[in-house]
Amino acid sequence: MNNNLSGMMATSTVLPVNTTTMSERDIIKGLQENVDAMFLIFCGMLIFFMKAGFSFLEAGAVRKKSVVNSLFRNFMDLYICGMAYWLFGFAFAYGNYNGNPFIGHDPNYFALASIAPAGYAMWFFQMVFGEAAATIVSGSVAERANSLGYVMANFLIAGFVYPVVTHWVWSTDGWLFLGDGTNAFTDFAGSGCVHVVGGSCALIATVIVGPRQGRFDHNGSVNEMKGHNLPFTALGALILFFGFFAFNGGSQKSISQPGDGVIVAKAVVNTMIAASFGGGSLTFIVRCTEKRWSLLQGLNGALASMVAICAGCATMHPLGACLTGIIAGLVYYGYSKVTPRLMIDDPVDAIALHLGGGSWGLIACALFSDTGVLLNWNQASFMGLAWQFIGLGTICAWCMSLTAAIFGSLKVFGMVGIDAEAESFGQDRHVHGEPGYGDDDTALLMGRERSDSSADAESLENEKWY
Amino acid sequence: MNNNLSGMMATSTVLPVNTTTMSERDIIKGLQENVDAMFLIFCGMLIFFMKAGFSFLEAGAVRKKSVVNSLFRNFMDLYICGMAYWLFGFAFAYGNYNGNPFIGHDPNYFALASIAPAGYAMWFFQMVFGEAAATIVSGSVAERANSLGYVMANFLIAGFVYPVVTHWVWSTDGWLFLGDGTNAFTDFAGSGCVHVVGGSCALIATVIVGPRQGRFDHNGSVNEMKGHNLPFTALGALILFFGFFAFNGGSQKSISQPGDGVIVAKAVVNTMIAASFGGGSLTFIVRCTEKRWSLLQGLNGALASMVAICAGCATMHPLGACLTGIIAGLVYYGYSKVTPRLMIDDPVDAIALHLGGGSWGLIACALFSDTGVLLNWNQASFMGLAWQFIGLGTICAWCMSLTAAIFGSLKVFGMVGIDAEAESFGQDRHVHGEPGYGDDDTALLMGRERSDSSADAESLENEKWY
Amino acid sequence: MNNNLSGMMATSTVLPVNTTTMSERDIIKGLQENVDAMFLIFCGMLIFFMKAGFSFLEAGAVRKKSVVNSLFRNFMDLYICGMAYWLFGFAFAYGNYNGNPFIGHDPNYFALASIAPAGYAMWFFQMVFGEAAATIVSGSVAERANSLGYVMANFLIAGFVYPVVTHWVWSTDGWLFLGDGTNAFTDFAGSGCVHVVGGSCALIATVIVGPRQGRFDHNGSVNEMKGHNLPFTALGALILFFGFFAFNGGSQKSISQPGDGVIVAKAVVNTMIAASFGGGSLTFIVRCTEKRWSLLQGLNGALASMVAICAGCATMHPLGACLTGIIAGLVYYGYSKVTPRLMIDDPVDAIALHLGGGSWGLIACALFSDTGVLLNWNQASFMGLAWQFIGLGTICAWCMSLTAAIFGSLKVFGMVGIDAEAESFGQDRHVHGEPGYGDDDTALLMGRERSDSSADAESLENEKWY
Repeated sequence: MNNNLSGMMATSTVLPVNTTTMSERDIIKGLQENVDAMFLIFCGMLIFFMKAGFSFLEAGAVRKKSVVNSLFRNFMDLYICGMAYWLFGFAFAYGNYNGNPFIGHDPNYFALASIAPAGYAMWFFQMVFGEAAATIVSGSVAERANSLGYVMANFLIAGFVYPVVTHWVWSTDGWLFLGDGTNAFTDFAGSGCVHVVGGSCALIATVIVGPRQGRFDHNGSVNEMKGHNLPFTALGALILFFGFFAFNGGSQKSISQPGDGVIVAKAVVNTMIAASFGGGSLTFIVRCTEKRWSLLQGLNGALASMVAICAGCATMHPLGACLTGIIAGLVYYGYSKVTPRLMIDDPVDAIALHLGGGSWGLIACALFSDTGVLLNWNQASFMGLAWQFIGLGTICAWCMSLTAAIFGSLKVFGMVGIDAEAESFGQDRHVHGEPGYGDDDTALLMGRERSDSSADAESLENEKWY
Repeated sequence: MNNNLSGMMATSTVLPVNTTTMSERDIIKGLQENVDAMFLIFCGMLIFFMKAGFSFLEAGAVRKKSVVNSLFRNFMDLYICGMAYWLFGFAFAYGNYNGNPFIGHDPNYFALASIAPAGYAMWFFQMVFGEAAATIVSGSVAERANSLGYVMANFLIAGFVYPVVTHWVWSTDGWLFLGDGTNAFTDFAGSGCVHVVGGSCALIATVIVGPRQGRFDHNGSVNEMKGHNLPFTALGALILFFGFFAFNGGSQKSISQPGDGVIVAKAVVNTMIAASFGGGSLTFIVRCTEKRWSLLQGLNGALASMVAICAGCATMHPLGACLTGIIAGLVYYGYSKVTPRLMIDDPVDAIALHLGGGSWGLIACALFSDTGVLLNWNQASFMGLAWQFIGLGTICAWCMSLTAAIFGSLKVFGMVGIDAEAESFGQDRHVHGEPGYGDDDTALLMGRERSDSSADAESLENEKWY
Repeated sequence: MNNNLSGMMATSTVLPVNTTTMSERDIIKGLQENVDAMFLIFCGMLIFFMKAGFSFLEAGAVRKKSVVNSLFRNFMDLYICGMAYWLFGFAFAYGNYNGNPFIGHDPNYFALASIAPAGYAMWFFQMVFGEAAATIVSGSVAERANSLGYVMANFLIAGFVYPVVTHWVWSTDGWLFLGDGTNAFTDFAGSGCVHVVGGSCALIATVIVGPRQGRFDHNGSVNEMKGHNLPFTALGALILFFGFFAFNGGSQKSISQPGDGVIVAKAVVNTMIAASFGGGSLTFIVRCTEKRWSLLQGLNGALASMVAICAGCATMHPLGACLTGIIAGLVYYGYSKVTPRLMIDDPVDAIALHLGGGSWGLIACALFSDTGVLLNWNQASFMGLAWQFIGLGTICAWCMSLTAAIFGSLKVFGMVGIDAEAESFGQDRHVHGEPGYGDDDTALLMGRERSDSSADAESLENEKWY
């Protein structure tokens, strides 16, 4: 910095380092470390902002009476995940100790008690990933989940279920990372570690919580329940698109070493190409099958493609990304048609997006990567594919069984759903005392009285602790 | 990175480079390349997010019945531009071959078939620029464009019309870049290449598509059609402001060489100053002329200023940016008053913003730059001004004639507009089967029945392919 | 960059520097300067985007009839602050001259007349801080402030009140920066310089402007006035969360020197931890006291924590951040309960958030920092605490007295409030001629006629200049 500006730099916490006596190599090393930290932090910030994407994707997809409830659960995910990942999640994921292949547990990592300085940037980056994984459940159980129960489950998913999986896959000690020594499970940016985790938990949670009132008739026919604000959903999707570039590109986790820039750029380009073809092709397919141009199916197709390209975005030619995207759109579409048939009520199609898209992504990675089955029809590539199935199966089994245990336990204590009256009336007024649209002319017109939060609070006094 | 963290770095695709045996100079060169890639990618991400800005600027400016239609076209732009720019747009723009001054066509560039590794970051950066240019048309034809026809036109604009112009201006082979050998056309960040391109296409498309039903009476009097959600428009504008800093600053396309940082910072500062004075001064002018404090005119003034400062943001003193901004606000205001008089119905004033602001920007650059007419009253500066007019004229002619050809051809096949009933009823329900606000109490009150998408789809079955 | 790409780099303004003849040390120095510029600019962009956060936090919290008015004031803040900070704000803050400890006044800094090149990035970074400080007032005076009066006050706050405080604290000449030579006031990212400044101005402005019609009955009882769109408020909060990471991390203002990356990362991590515990704990507390799960109180708790952690985020262990956050939530909650009792009508609780959170942050910094009272029960740490009180007191006194002078003067000229009819009818139609939701079925239903802006403009013609 120019001397004239020294006056401005006053707040910098200057370290007592005299760079004029340092060797060039040391100065470069210091700069590399700083540039890596900057890269991780900026990517982490952009990924953090995906929270706004998840929140509005869901907020738009629920009915008017539940919009605050949806936002509430998304905000709680934020707070709870920050707490849980700080207290123990990070230690379980990356606190390697004695090379345990199943779980990390270095005591210095709990509550960041005594971590190497470079670990702060990494904590932030990993925490926002955890937040993305844990919040996936929120959309699937929207409108009828018990708030306290949900928060408790989220605490365990963000703090334990998810970190353990990342230890398997992304820690140098993890058993899926090590594989059989020659071949191993690969998941660059989390098709499995984040999206299959979130989607698996969402599936089980949704089954245990059960469908919304009136979603399915007794004969099994499906009643559509439209979201109240499709522009909000579109806003959420655009924010998620934006964040996905940092999600996938940032997963290189380093920008200072030779070649890093190219890998990051390739991941970003492939993310864009997958989304374009996934979203575009599904839009045309739905035009043919349903005779309408669907904004919602198109954007979900693009999101599913971005989910699917996570695993292989750094190791594919763009042509592979194009194929991954097109098929991801179809996989999503199939899942989204099947779930209601199975009486599973998923208001945001999170299961189709994350479990469907993520599973396909793990397989696509083994098929279309530069070392994949398609370009190298040999034993190594097939072993790679086999490891993807092993990883996928194990992750699903782990997440589903733990989620079943968590929500099953909550069910015993009556902390999974809410009572019928509260659901029918809407949680916004009944549980939160905060209608989403407080200044509501329509409510006045329809003879409903505007309730203020103190009145709502009163009505809640005899309620159980949702 | 600290050794203790090596366990976390597992997913990085590590290249077999041993930096300890590299010379300092080579390590620095590698770091410079990576820092450039990071700069391009982060700027590209922020510019990508301008898509959300364009989407909501338009979504708020249309009537309630067309909000999904607006978002749909914006999302399709995203997918289609990603496809087209990958398949051939990039090759036409930067695939230099035999020094063709009119169009690039290196076969290695089509579908990124075999590009130099550093090209990935550049592709992403250029693609998001193309997306911005091509999506400008969307707002102008809002509420009455045929979806399929629009998508086809967008494919050609993003994949051919726009890339060829950038080849002229931003490729070292381009005829406008080369000029007469001494003086040449200059456009740092795309007042011409992006905004005049988008604005010209929008003008012709709007004329061919024609006005919305009821916008103009037979006697030529204008009926105002207010947008349904001004906060959405304001949100879009704020996102566009945010993105414009990356748009203009990022156009330096490099941060690693001596002086890059200063140029990028100057571009960003000038963007801020132009917007402040453009938005602020127009707000006061409208207060005087229309006796009201207009949020919408103010934000459009600021946007027009940011459009206008693109060309000269890196080569002006802030005082020049201040003047550029104030005049840009007036140019926008004049255009926005003239277009309805000419029976041109532009719901978002995209023509005024991008054609008006962009044209003025090209001229302002030649006037107020450090080497411009005002500070150097000499032959070179006037030749520079002449080249700006040559470039402006050629870009307009190219874009307008091609857009006329594209939309003219579509008109022959009946793929420009929609039938009167569909427009009157609103495309959201009629074409997309997705009302923007599904949970609509008001609709119920007014005796309209909530239609679900299957019912809508049925009603569409006998429709033509919009 | 690879040679194959040279064609793409055409627009870069290349400086006549031949790096092949430069020494390694000089190349590194150039790269460091550029990386610092990039860091400041990216952080500045993200902080700029907080404007969207402030705007929607407020837009959602007002009634439907005032949403455009709220957005209008926020946009004006943007333009006005850009102007004022360019013209003289920056010079007052950092234009050091003769070592004046109270105010800077180097003539080269006014309107960036002749500043060192590296100053451009710094100007942008400081300007967005100023914008954040000055816009805090907007929310507190929402729905009833006189637009012209507000704009004039904002010009003075952004251009004089705020910059002088930053000169005291963040300039190497400032008296609070220098302290007594041994101990001094410390405020890393602006708990005092930004938030106490904004909160103090907001308090006085709110008192002088007075409450909204009907907010308080004559007997002092409080009538709740709910915001019209809680999702907008939630969106604003999420954008503010996002921006706060850049706000706090970016305050290191440098990333190129050894150790910078760690400090930035620590600031970001502490911001996240404070927000998690502040938002989470307040949510539970409100659940206990008010028997409801409040989204709004939770997000305000998180915001207050982020405000409070500004001062000490770079110098605390995460455990300190956790404590700072929890207490910040309580401080906010207390303030937000007390203000209406004092007949102060603050629609967005800006006083509680920024004055409450900021004051606590200054104290928390002296308590929980690594050199703070808690860990070093000695004279130096207590002197540090004393300096925090001195700084807090002086900042409050300066801001409050100047704001009283500004709004007092405006009151003399009748430019503080608006007349009763305009407030009752709503400023959106009456003053701006732009209803927020133009396409309003409900209005039709209720027999109100949709007014278009020309009609509104007419009705305004005889009004005074609001």
